[in-house]
Amino acid sequence: MQPPEQTLADLGEFGLVELVGTPTTAPHVRIGPGDDAALVSAASNGVLASVDVAVEGRHFRRDWSSAEDVGHRVAAANLADIAAMGGTAHSLLVGFCAPGDLPVSWAEEMASGLVAEAAKVGAVVVGGDVSAADQVVVAVSVLGDPGPAVVRRQGARPGDVLAARGRLGWAAAGHAVLARGFRSPRAVVEAHRRPEPPYAAGPQAGAAGATAMIDVSDGLLADVAHLARASDVRCDIEREAAEVAEPLVAVGAALGIDPAVFWFTGGDDHALVACFPPGVLPAGWRPIGSVHPPVRQGFDYVTVDGEPWQGPSGHQHF
Amino acid sequence: MQPPEQTLADLGEFGLVELVGTPTTAPHVRIGPGDDAALVSAASNGVLASVDVAVEGRHFRRDWSSAEDVGHRVAAANLADIAAMGGTAHSLLVGFCAPGDLPVSWAEEMASGLVAEAAKVGAVVVGGDVSAADQVVVAVSVLGDPGPAVVRRQGARPGDVLAARGRLGWAAAGHAVLARGFRSPRAVVEAHRRPEPPYAAGPQAGAAGATAMIDVSDGLLADVAHLARASDVRCDIEREAAEVAEPLVAVGAALGIDPAVFWFTGGDDHALVACFPPGVLPAGWRPIGSVHPPVRQGFDYVTVDGEPWQGPSGHQHF
Repeated sequence: MQPPEQTLADLGEFGLVELVGTPTTAPHVRIGPGDDAALVSAASNGVLASVDVAVEGRHFRRDWSSAEDVGHRVAAANLADIAAMGGTAHSLLVGFCAPGDLPVSWAEEMASGLVAEAAKVGAVVVGGDVSAADQVVVAVSVLGDPGPAVVRRQGARPGDVLAARGRLGWAAAGHAVLARGFRSPRAVVEAHRRPEPPYAAGPQAGAAGATAMIDVSDGLLADVAHLARASDVRCDIEREAAEVAEPLVAVGAALGIDPAVFWFTGGDDHALVACFPPGVLPAGWRPIGSVHPPVRQGFDYVTVDGEPWQGPSGHQHF
Repeated sequence: MQPPEQTLADLGEFGLVELVGTPTTAPHVRIGPGDDAALVSAASNGVLASVDVAVEGRHFRRDWSSAEDVGHRVAAANLADIAAMGGTAHSLLVGFCAPGDLPVSWAEEMASGLVAEAAKVGAVVVGGDVSAADQVVVAVSVLGDPGPAVVRRQGARPGDVLAARGRLGWAAAGHAVLARGFRSPRAVVEAHRRPEPPYAAGPQAGAAGATAMIDVSDGLLADVAHLARASDVRCDIEREAAEVAEPLVAVGAALGIDPAVFWFTGGDDHALVACFPPGVLPAGWRPIGSVHPPVRQGFDYVTVDGEPWQGPSGHQHF
């Protein structure tokens, strides 16, 4: 007989805090986990800060993603928020809720995925708190250094080029196949499990003079609309710019879905979308459209080839 | 017929983000809610950062506390963590999960309590994220400026005076009466609903030369043990120092509990406990014991009148 697996209830609160708040050494961490608060160095131009919550059954499923995948995903969502401001994340605070019968190994592996993803940009976990709850909730706050220039959602100007960096629609295609009980194509399933946001492209865009930027977490159309509304412009996306890669075509064919819909509406890849003045597009950024004066009648902050989008839209969390 | 109350599901994600992330103006907030991340100014000596999660049914009950109470309580736990390091909180990030059928008014009132508590120290909400979930979870991260001196759990030295500031046991007495279906004495019920941590006493202690400090969230004995372990000392608490105020005596008498137990083991008042070199006790701090070399045999990091505590201990979250 196998020995019973150790659960969170066995471990108790203090054990889990130590587990999530693995002692970390990084030059900017003056006081790490273990005190009432951590103390981290900050850049002279301030601290970027954001929070993201991920709830089991809404943002992830334990039968679709390994614990390590979930850690990667949750960290990626946070780190991308800092990149989208032109900055680089340096510190994470992890609030973790879970049922008492959750195996300790799940929490350990989730923490390990989170730590590994954070390490990609040099960020570390500096604090944590845990509680029993009916379902798994991971609430992560992230702190980061502003880059050479802070880039906001507002600031885009008519005449700017709209450009993207990173994959679009892959995670959504992965979600679509998982939702139908399939596990392939592997590439899109992996994209759902472990998005690969183009972290370095955030500061790169800021240094190049990006006028506005956002990370794509709700879908290209939805997030470009947020940017356009904040900037009081209309963004037009060229349908021809849609890079519908082979795995997306395959998923579309298998499921009877226009694969371009993944590209236009799929969130969770955490691609970056930014606006650049003409002639300054930095390496690796693909032009996908253009910026225009706002349409005063109606709410068409974003158009596709000059027309309102007619297809299905992105997801709602409630 | 009353119109049906608006629920979170009606409001949708974006409405709720705006609700929780009420636009705030404060000199240190350079970019507030509404972008992918906020940008806040930081002191040249860094940023204190901490996270606390509060789960419905574990940390609060909607039939025991109003939404506004819950906001006050969750914020207080966070702000006290920064005070316990000798600092002052300036920014909060709010992760909020709730069932879709939660009335919007509950979320609004919770946010308003949170904002009001934060205002006591000049802190504001700079970001938020929301998600549907099976139960209400409020995960708040807090950022703060270090004070004149950063005070940790480690650093206490034999010969130091152990001192406390703020109420001890009141919230626990309030919890005890609520758990038995009573609503009075009002003073302790209110203390449970809205703790009053002595925020300013944190920086005060740092300036006065405190060698170690902690906020009492798990109970005096448990938290002093954390401090003693981190400092590698033994802390001795004098039983005579227990300030068992009248409402605690009344609750003890009514429930057949030694009221001193509330004082020794009750958490959630967020009192501060600190160690000071002899002769420097700042105004308002009450001596409650003394610091000694560690006991090498056993784990008696904290003693009461020189002996291990024999009564019931504090709570476990799992």
